[in-house]
Amino acid sequence: MIRMNYNCYLKRHLRNSTVYIFFILLIPKGLVAQTDPAFKPISADIIKISSKVLGEDRKVYIYVPPADTLLPNKRYPVLYVLDGDNHFSLVAEYCRYLSRRDVNVVPEMIIVGIPNTNRTRDLTPTNSIWGYDGKPDTSSNSRYKSSGGGNNFLQFIGAELIPYVDAHYKTKPFKIFAGHSFGGITTINCLLTQPDMFGAYIAISPSFWWDKGYLLSLADEKLKNDRTINKMVFYSDGNEGMPNDPTFHTNLLKFDSIITQRKITGLDHKYVHYPEDTHMTEPIKAYYDALRFIFRQWNSH
Amino acid sequence: MIRMNYNCYLKRHLRNSTVYIFFILLIPKGLVAQTDPAFKPISADIIKISSKVLGEDRKVYIYVPPADTLLPNKRYPVLYVLDGDNHFSLVAEYCRYLSRRDVNVVPEMIIVGIPNTNRTRDLTPTNSIWGYDGKPDTSSNSRYKSSGGGNNFLQFIGAELIPYVDAHYKTKPFKIFAGHSFGGITTINCLLTQPDMFGAYIAISPSFWWDKGYLLSLADEKLKNDRTINKMVFYSDGNEGMPNDPTFHTNLLKFDSIITQRKITGLDHKYVHYPEDTHMTEPIKAYYDALRFIFRQWNSH
Repeated sequence: MIRMNYNCYLKRHLRNSTVYIFFILLIPKGLVAQTDPAFKPISADIIKISSKVLGEDRKVYIYVPPADTLLPNKRYPVLYVLDGDNHFSLVAEYCRYLSRRDVNVVPEMIIVGIPNTNRTRDLTPTNSIWGYDGKPDTSSNSRYKSSGGGNNFLQFIGAELIPYVDAHYKTKPFKIFAGHSFGGITTINCLLTQPDMFGAYIAISPSFWWDKGYLLSLADEKLKNDRTINKMVFYSDGNEGMPNDPTFHTNLLKFDSIITQRKITGLDHKYVHYPEDTHMTEPIKAYYDALRFIFRQWNSH
Repeated sequence: MIRMNYNCYLKRHLRNSTVYIFFILLIPKGLVAQTDPAFKPISADIIKISSKVLGEDRKVYIYVPPADTLLPNKRYPVLYVLDGDNHFSLVAEYCRYLSRRDVNVVPEMIIVGIPNTNRTRDLTPTNSIWGYDGKPDTSSNSRYKSSGGGNNFLQFIGAELIPYVDAHYKTKPFKIFAGHSFGGITTINCLLTQPDMFGAYIAISPSFWWDKGYLLSLADEKLKNDRTINKMVFYSDGNEGMPNDPTFHTNLLKFDSIITQRKITGLDHKYVHYPEDTHMTEPIKAYYDALRFIFRQWNSH
């Protein structure tokens, strides 16, 4: 059934002239099924999209739940995860495990992983040379030179990627946008500037230090007392900078106080601090907690 | 390099007459590498072992870290995980992510997943018809009829599986034994009766209710004040039975009190209670916390 499903997608892809399959990773499922029905590694379509917005080809990884023979037209929420190179297989593994019938705390989901080409360009909202240490990086090969393409990148996601996924996969309207570090400020920037693009936002250790606190200022400006934002947002941090420099954590507390103290109707939020986790181990806990938060009222029955 | 590694194993397998490769799941790595160096799903050797102890063929899944071109003879600790059908890919994903150079909180490991043939037979230490509800199951098709093969199963692991893995893979002596539910009482039974088989034990929500608390009695008998057990053990539970029946949790507390109140030299232990997690979601947190506990003093440098 899964192969048929892929073949179905294949036909659709081939009808689309601007977007084409770059390579479909087809683990020989038939063979696995004959020899061993249990172990199925996460597999994904690897799609290349020729983006006019970005002026480059972009690859994305797309995990699709196993076909439901009883519900062949079943549709799925979609989780878009940034830094797809690093986090796609972990998030897909979580969603697959947590949606099993004997676990059943989140729905089955389509997972779209977006790997980077120029991470600093795409995942920063402004052009800035100010580093994490509070000093400007004026070196000729500064990695910050290309920064500030974040809004253009959101334009790619909203105008090209999401329409592509919705056209070619069996999607439901509910969409989640998840990111870590620079990916975290990207999802928060989207929530603040284009909140209707997704239904839920996950920001794991967002780099609020970016451009001398640009996004905290933007949050202060955008999150007014009288606003209505019927969205969900999960944000978190680990032990960054500790014990010597609490700035990273203080930034999260500032963002949390803006969220909690303003009277914003409908904004369903959760903040978790993971003092025992580093910037890099935190995603293991935070993606899970974020999924449980987002689907805490989900009922499969 | 990974392909060469597999080929190397292949030659070894073919020299062994009693153990042979059933099927090696070879994702076309070369092709993926050309098209996309980032996304690599968990892949595994699927090995079939003709077990004399169990009198049946047993499949195991074996994940091997990517070959280290700078250290071609590098050797790895081995984590053996029960209920391989359900937990192998999650545990392998964790170990791969957490051992990345930019995360680096556990060493790279070989992961051996052991799927079930007759779970109740293999993962229970005694023959018993007493169920979780404290009542005997006397029905003619009771799933408990075949119970009590646990010690035979440990014999298979100690006398056949571990020697096979050590002979065919680049292993270090340090080994971890991880299990959930019935798998949890299997690892605890091993710790109590054959502690030298592994260096560290993980028991996620062990079913201490089995056979009217058989393992708690065994722990009381085996864990004497004057013993020396230079091993590590992590055990945990979720919200099983709550809020109405605290028995599952009380059993964990009893085991923990035996461990903490006896003066056992060298037994490095950690107990975590996850009140917000179910029996089935708890493994997401517990495997991670167990790995962090076991390798908290590990230093890669």
